[in-house]
Amino acid sequence: MRALFLFLIIVFAATPAPAQGPGVASDRDVPDIACDVLFQVSTIDALLDGVYDGAMPMAEVLAHGDTGIGTLDGLDGELIVIDGKAWVVRPDGRPAPVPGHVTTPFASVTPFEADQTLALGPAVSMAELAAALDAALPTPNLFYAIKAHGEFKAVRTRSVPRQAKPYPPLAEVTAHQTVFELGPVAGTLVGFYCPPYVKGVNVPGWHLHFLSDDRSSGGHVLDVAFDSLTVALDLTGEFFMALPPGDSDFYRSDLSLDRSKALHDVEK
Amino acid sequence: MRALFLFLIIVFAATPAPAQGPGVASDRDVPDIACDVLFQVSTIDALLDGVYDGAMPMAEVLAHGDTGIGTLDGLDGELIVIDGKAWVVRPDGRPAPVPGHVTTPFASVTPFEADQTLALGPAVSMAELAAALDAALPTPNLFYAIKAHGEFKAVRTRSVPRQAKPYPPLAEVTAHQTVFELGPVAGTLVGFYCPPYVKGVNVPGWHLHFLSDDRSSGGHVLDVAFDSLTVALDLTGEFFMALPPGDSDFYRSDLSLDRSKALHDVEK
Repeated sequence: MRALFLFLIIVFAATPAPAQGPGVASDRDVPDIACDVLFQVSTIDALLDGVYDGAMPMAEVLAHGDTGIGTLDGLDGELIVIDGKAWVVRPDGRPAPVPGHVTTPFASVTPFEADQTLALGPAVSMAELAAALDAALPTPNLFYAIKAHGEFKAVRTRSVPRQAKPYPPLAEVTAHQTVFELGPVAGTLVGFYCPPYVKGVNVPGWHLHFLSDDRSSGGHVLDVAFDSLTVALDLTGEFFMALPPGDSDFYRSDLSLDRSKALHDVEK
Repeated sequence: MRALFLFLIIVFAATPAPAQGPGVASDRDVPDIACDVLFQVSTIDALLDGVYDGAMPMAEVLAHGDTGIGTLDGLDGELIVIDGKAWVVRPDGRPAPVPGHVTTPFASVTPFEADQTLALGPAVSMAELAAALDAALPTPNLFYAIKAHGEFKAVRTRSVPRQAKPYPPLAEVTAHQTVFELGPVAGTLVGFYCPPYVKGVNVPGWHLHFLSDDRSSGGHVLDVAFDSLTVALDLTGEFFMALPPGDSDFYRSDLSLDRSKALHDVEK
């Protein structure tokens, strides 16, 4: 643990947030939906249960954030939103732009603004990276968006194939996931830290996707190794969740179960 | 169980929701924060852990809803928001209006619009009422706001005294709660159903407060008995949570624990 702290140098950027997000008009004190809000479609436990039908077009999702992760209608690959553009990495491993009309069954985005930046020294695993990031948080009880750029010695990612109905649970799909051993590669880790009390709603802890600078590779991050990494964190104290509208598989999913083990299985 | 269904007559009001909530201007397709959003301050587990410092003025909370429940800064009584007015029931048992500058450490509100109305027959307990309401829900996986008006044969409520620092956990406070045996009394049950997957965030199942028509009594509902009850339900598919801003007790609360038992103890 001491080594973690030694290589952790915290630089406080103290970027002031704009008073009003772009494109949102309001004549009273409503929460600024465009600032410091994690905007989420559906819940992780519904996804674990196989609720893969798209619930919101990506164009609408992107109105709420320029940075984030998720998947597409039918569990059609791994979604990465960066700099306001949505990319999907399917099992062929090649990132493709996502048209705005394509829907998502589960996604999280935020308008990214760095509140805190970190210069991390070497790490040889996702566990080491997560521990270094955990140590830098002012509290484990908020949400954080992360963008981390660097030259990676290695990134292990995965993707999943589009599913047909009846949809199998996510753990059955990821049992046959396609794994990519990337690196050395320059790119960005994108994702979120969610606090422990949203278990069932989103993924507690760090959930990261990757996109290479040359947009030739990416996916859901399983492991990483790097000598140095520049991390930007966006402290996020507000949370908005839009559940799938209308009568759907979401209505009939058993969301009273503790799916922690299934979540652990699909994340690793 | 059969009796429950027999006395349950569901009348679908099918009230069309207005396309735009009052007072919210928007030039694009953002979620309508004033419609069908449960707006929440902080989390139930933080309250269970004694995070009682007010985090938002009631005037700001009321901008997000005209109906709801919660408590006030320092755990100063039981909050009931009805028809856009906030009332607090302290251990003296007399509802008092809440000035807009007073803050809340935990509250949930929504702009109430009935989507579904029920005419319930007799019930002799909170458990019977909850079972009848459960049976009427199209799915257990959404949020629902409830306003239920009737002549109650009996309502058992409670309140809690304002706390001084260092704040004790909520279960210690409710161990010494003041209980009111009300009735017969005309009044309204106000509150929410929250789905099981928000455990830790809000109260799963039904959480009701009461306010009498003559505004002379109320509190957190422990039990009810009635011959008939008119129930209005507001299906709520969007959820907004504002966490306490800035470095505070909230930052330091251990929100990784399963506080289900403590929640059960304080609700009953």
